[in-house]
Amino acid sequence: MDYVIVKILEEPKLKNPILIEGLPGIGLVGKLAVDHMLDELKAKKFIEMYSPFLPPQVSILEDGTVKLVNMEFYYWIGEKNDLILLVGDFQGITPDSQYQLAEKTLDIAEKFNVMRIFTLGGFGTGGITKRPRVFGAATNRRLVEELRKYGIIFKGGGAIFGASGLLLGLGMQRDIEGVCLMGETHGQIIDAKSAEAVLRVLTRILDIDIDMTELAEKAKETEHQMSRMSKIISEQKKAIERQQEFMEERPSYIR
Amino acid sequence: MDYVIVKILEEPKLKNPILIEGLPGIGLVGKLAVDHMLDELKAKKFIEMYSPFLPPQVSILEDGTVKLVNMEFYYWIGEKNDLILLVGDFQGITPDSQYQLAEKTLDIAEKFNVMRIFTLGGFGTGGITKRPRVFGAATNRRLVEELRKYGIIFKGGGAIFGASGLLLGLGMQRDIEGVCLMGETHGQIIDAKSAEAVLRVLTRILDIDIDMTELAEKAKETEHQMSRMSKIISEQKKAIERQQEFMEERPSYIR
Amino acid sequence: MDYVIVKILEEPKLKNPILIEGLPGIGLVGKLAVDHMLDELKAKKFIEMYSPFLPPQVSILEDGTVKLVNMEFYYWIGEKNDLILLVGDFQGITPDSQYQLAEKTLDIAEKFNVMRIFTLGGFGTGGITKRPRVFGAATNRRLVEELRKYGIIFKGGGAIFGASGLLLGLGMQRDIEGVCLMGETHGQIIDAKSAEAVLRVLTRILDIDIDMTELAEKAKETEHQMSRMSKIISEQKKAIERQQEFMEERPSYIR
Amino acid sequence: MDYVIVKILEEPKLKNPILIEGLPGIGLVGKLAVDHMLDELKAKKFIEMYSPFLPPQVSILEDGTVKLVNMEFYYWIGEKNDLILLVGDFQGITPDSQYQLAEKTLDIAEKFNVMRIFTLGGFGTGGITKRPRVFGAATNRRLVEELRKYGIIFKGGGAIFGASGLLLGLGMQRDIEGVCLMGETHGQIIDAKSAEAVLRVLTRILDIDIDMTELAEKAKETEHQMSRMSKIISEQKKAIERQQEFMEERPSYIR
Repeated sequence: MDYVIVKILEEPKLKNPILIEGLPGIGLVGKLAVDHMLDELKAKKFIEMYSPFLPPQVSILEDGTVKLVNMEFYYWIGEKNDLILLVGDFQGITPDSQYQLAEKTLDIAEKFNVMRIFTLGGFGTGGITKRPRVFGAATNRRLVEELRKYGIIFKGGGAIFGASGLLLGLGMQRDIEGVCLMGETHGQIIDAKSAEAVLRVLTRILDIDIDMTELAEKAKETEHQMSRMSKIISEQKKAIERQQEFMEERPSYIR
Repeated sequence: MDYVIVKILEEPKLKNPILIEGLPGIGLVGKLAVDHMLDELKAKKFIEMYSPFLPPQVSILEDGTVKLVNMEFYYWIGEKNDLILLVGDFQGITPDSQYQLAEKTLDIAEKFNVMRIFTLGGFGTGGITKRPRVFGAATNRRLVEELRKYGIIFKGGGAIFGASGLLLGLGMQRDIEGVCLMGETHGQIIDAKSAEAVLRVLTRILDIDIDMTELAEKAKETEHQMSRMSKIISEQKKAIERQQEFMEERPSYIR
Repeated sequence: MDYVIVKILEEPKLKNPILIEGLPGIGLVGKLAVDHMLDELKAKKFIEMYSPFLPPQVSILEDGTVKLVNMEFYYWIGEKNDLILLVGDFQGITPDSQYQLAEKTLDIAEKFNVMRIFTLGGFGTGGITKRPRVFGAATNRRLVEELRKYGIIFKGGGAIFGASGLLLGLGMQRDIEGVCLMGETHGQIIDAKSAEAVLRVLTRILDIDIDMTELAEKAKETEHQMSRMSKIISEQKKAIERQQEFMEERPSYIR
Repeated sequence: MDYVIVKILEEPKLKNPILIEGLPGIGLVGKLAVDHMLDELKAKKFIEMYSPFLPPQVSILEDGTVKLVNMEFYYWIGEKNDLILLVGDFQGITPDSQYQLAEKTLDIAEKFNVMRIFTLGGFGTGGITKRPRVFGAATNRRLVEELRKYGIIFKGGGAIFGASGLLLGLGMQRDIEGVCLMGETHGQIIDAKSAEAVLRVLTRILDIDIDMTELAEKAKETEHQMSRMSKIISEQKKAIERQQEFMEERPSYIR
């Protein structure tokens, strides 16, 4: 089995496409933002990507059918730029898998001539703020200067983990430029306010219009859904672990 | 060494075969059910599968000989459908190995023209019930509707982990349909009652007859055997860990 | 880099060779026994095997030079049977690496036409005994019957972990027969008495003569050396971990 | 994606080059020493090496741009010997990745005809000393004798972990000689004094001159920078872990 399987459902012709990544991360800021874009723009799914690097499980959908854990690419036809949105419920579960999945994503970006990547995430401060700021980090200084105008704060220090970091770092090796937008957030909550702050900046940059009314609602729903799923899964988890104790009374010396 | 080694002992011609997976999982429900089917139907082993993705160990059998940890496929010649039963003492021990083992299982399913997969498991609720219900999740809505008639409950939410989930999710990529039947169970006990509930539904679907008398007996025996093995192995385990302390006084910084 | 690198230093012609494995395990019984054989028989090193599956480290020898962690094969010319002795300070550090290293060992066994494998280990009981018994498990019943005559106890239940188990289980796939001899031992101590018990049985089976006088002495020395090394290494370990805290203040979410 | 990507920026002709490794380790002794050499000698970067075996992250630089985690090689034209300096912020994060990265480093060493390798590190004692000694371990006795003259202490026991050990142990397999110089250090602090002790010996061996004035200053700065970064990253870390709890309420039975 290949490490990453890419299933192309459609091959749209895209003009000056921009890739926007919204995989789960700090405060679910990036995921909330891009999931919301996807709904509001009515973007269309055109690629599915699954992988042994994602958790070995299927989700049970509302109609009783199952869905393999995956990452999905959607496209949207814009005026100046078409958009590609990358969403999913998980990131790669080992360090090297994060690299493999990012490389595959960049292969797709190159195939569709993506000229710029935005990765979205949260910047956890441990504090609560009414007007979350948006921090940035980019692949080159020109981009830093260009984006400062939108009120994005660029300052050194720290690191960006996972897809949001690697799509930039590995993208640089292929001369694809990119920027990570990070919404200020507490870190311990699912933060629709921070996602909105990021989206407001991003839509200004992209010169598109997105209604924010339902974002907070969706965040609440997400939280609710998660806590429900979390309860069910937590029972399954305890049960599985108990079972493992039975079956795997084996030494822990091999790790 | 290949990741999964498939040893075909016999190549039976099978008509409309259905694959039934009973690897260890929650409450050992699936394993108990399929192990019991195998005994009652006097199914015949025709494939062995071993792998570095399974624990690196051999079991010591009653006659003093050893057996390499593996997964085994049995077949049974039925009237309408022949059956393939998949059993084993372990699942893959890393996330990606679960994918690799499921893919190899699907290769075998395709080779023998399997038209449908049933994966069996438990659904842990943390509660005890006298009449365990059977929950389901399937690869398509038609199947959901078809199986609802047997009293199987389909409802959204949650996830199915390991082989029971992946055989469905990866099977869908190959247009093999499947369903997971999950017996309601506490989760912290080996549950013959739940296995019986699942088997009763499954045999009605398959239109076959299986005597349940010895199932509870076998579950007790399994529990007994496991607790005995668990004691022996627990001593070995402590001993091995002690030895590791001696030999591996090395930094834990590399994981 | 290959997963296992085999460096053949010499290609002796061996008659009816028997492979004896003495890698570290419970009570260091197997290692003590085979290390002692090697010294007493003045066996000659002919193969080195190193691997990224072994710990990433070198040992510092008494003369200030370093030695890469490895496994080593020695041969000894006997009357009826020549012997191949397998020794080392570590086993593979991941489950799948145990398989890879065992397979490579079996490649070597086949190359030199090994007809039988003895794997040596301890059987931890948690108790202390004056006259440790020797337990066995073999790849076929004929061998079980043959070896019972030497007072080896064969009884079912439990499992054999690591090289001692896999060389038998994977050897069976190649039609190489083998037996694991396990000396009864407490499990929490380095046990020269148990190693002696195993050696006494083994030498009777092999019909060779080995002086045991220095075995207990060596076990003491081993224990002493280990506790000294363990102290030095423990300091290094603490230091490295501290350093890691500095450098790797990174999320533990990827495992 | 390859396991290690080597990006050669320039192909200098080097005469009798010596490779000096200064990756992070105990007390950051080796890293401090080689980072300082690099600054003082104004060595020039000519190779970048990145890898899925390094943490999946980018650092945010002072100017708001990002940098992919990597290892870097610098060269310096000397009188008798040219030098190649290997630096980086991380070592490989799994045991086998340490081997892979060391092998790739040795490929580069061979390509540029490196005749000797110095690996630098700390030797943690748990004690504090005013005049840290320098310990050594080498690939052959001739080298041990040669280097003893510089006051380096060679004594047996212990082990050298990670790149500092493997570059020697794997280098031996390619007939590249090498030595590890370890500065005595407490182990729990970033130790500029120990780095200076190692550098003083090394510069005498290499017959070059390096000003030590700024070394202590840099060590302080390093400590300061790290503690600042550590604070930022620690917030991100907590936030990410919280997020994972939400998204990954999945059983821990697969490791």
